[in-house]
Amino acid sequence: MPKAKIKYTDGMQFVGEAGSGHAIVMDTDSEFGGANTGLRPTELLLIGVGGCSGMDIVSVLKKKKQNLTGLEINVDGKKAETYPQKFTEINIEFVVTGKSLSEEAVKKAVDLSMEKYCSVKATLEGSAKITFSYKIVEG
Amino acid sequence: MPKAKIKYTDGMQFVGEAGSGHAIVMDTDSEFGGANTGLRPTELLLIGVGGCSGMDIVSVLKKKKQNLTGLEINVDGKKAETYPQKFTEINIEFVVTGKSLSEEAVKKAVDLSMEKYCSVKATLEGSAKITFSYKIVEG
Repeated sequence: MPKAKIKYTDGMQFVGEAGSGHAIVMDTDSEFGGANTGLRPTELLLIGVGGCSGMDIVSVLKKKKQNLTGLEINVDGKKAETYPQKFTEINIEFVVTGKSLSEEAVKKAVDLSMEKYCSVKATLEGSAKITFSYKIVEG
Repeated sequence: MPKAKIKYTDGMQFVGEAGSGHAIVMDTDSEFGGANTGLRPTELLLIGVGGCSGMDIVSVLKKKKQNLTGLEINVDGKKAETYPQKFTEINIEFVVTGKSLSEEAVKKAVDLSMEKYCSVKATLEGSAKITFSYKIVEG
């Protein structure tokens, strides 16, 4: 089961270490007493959904023998204005680059991730409306 | 509004960069084609909820003039067994260390974060049941 240990260092800086053995620094803006030495905790949700869906898409396209040369995922979030300011909307854009990619294969990979596999997306959509799109780039 | 850009590198490795300007590496286990060079995307949700609530608690305890000397947050997640294996339960333990801390102040800080301020917790609880506890350590 996934686990993490988060330790306070100083100011508003925390170091989070997870079961995989890797660690990251989190911090906040100076207006909240931080020094911007690391990622905002809320940003981790957006990076997480991008990484999770990206891995699904790479995996499916590799199985489909597609010549993938790049994948970039742009994630934008919208939070409620009132506390606790949870995410209400998340938009994900997949930019899939490759040589003679099959549009059908790309669409299938994106749909499989969004509808079946991506556990981060499935967790976040309990609160946020998640929309997504893709574009294919030859290269 | 929070945003992130996630780029595929190689294998199952991705680099996620967020609006704050900071970046992290994500990867997965060898059984899924990865090389464990970075955090799992799902671990980011647990680190995020720990960092978010930790910042709230530090902020409240500082305002209450408490002599906080350490804060450690242990987060355990449970995911569904069937796809998309979303988080169904998350348990958060706060270990608050300080000199003559007021238990009332600590309880208030934890409750304010969990019930009012923490946007990551509020987002995740759309899918996962979140439980929490705290303990106070003199030191």
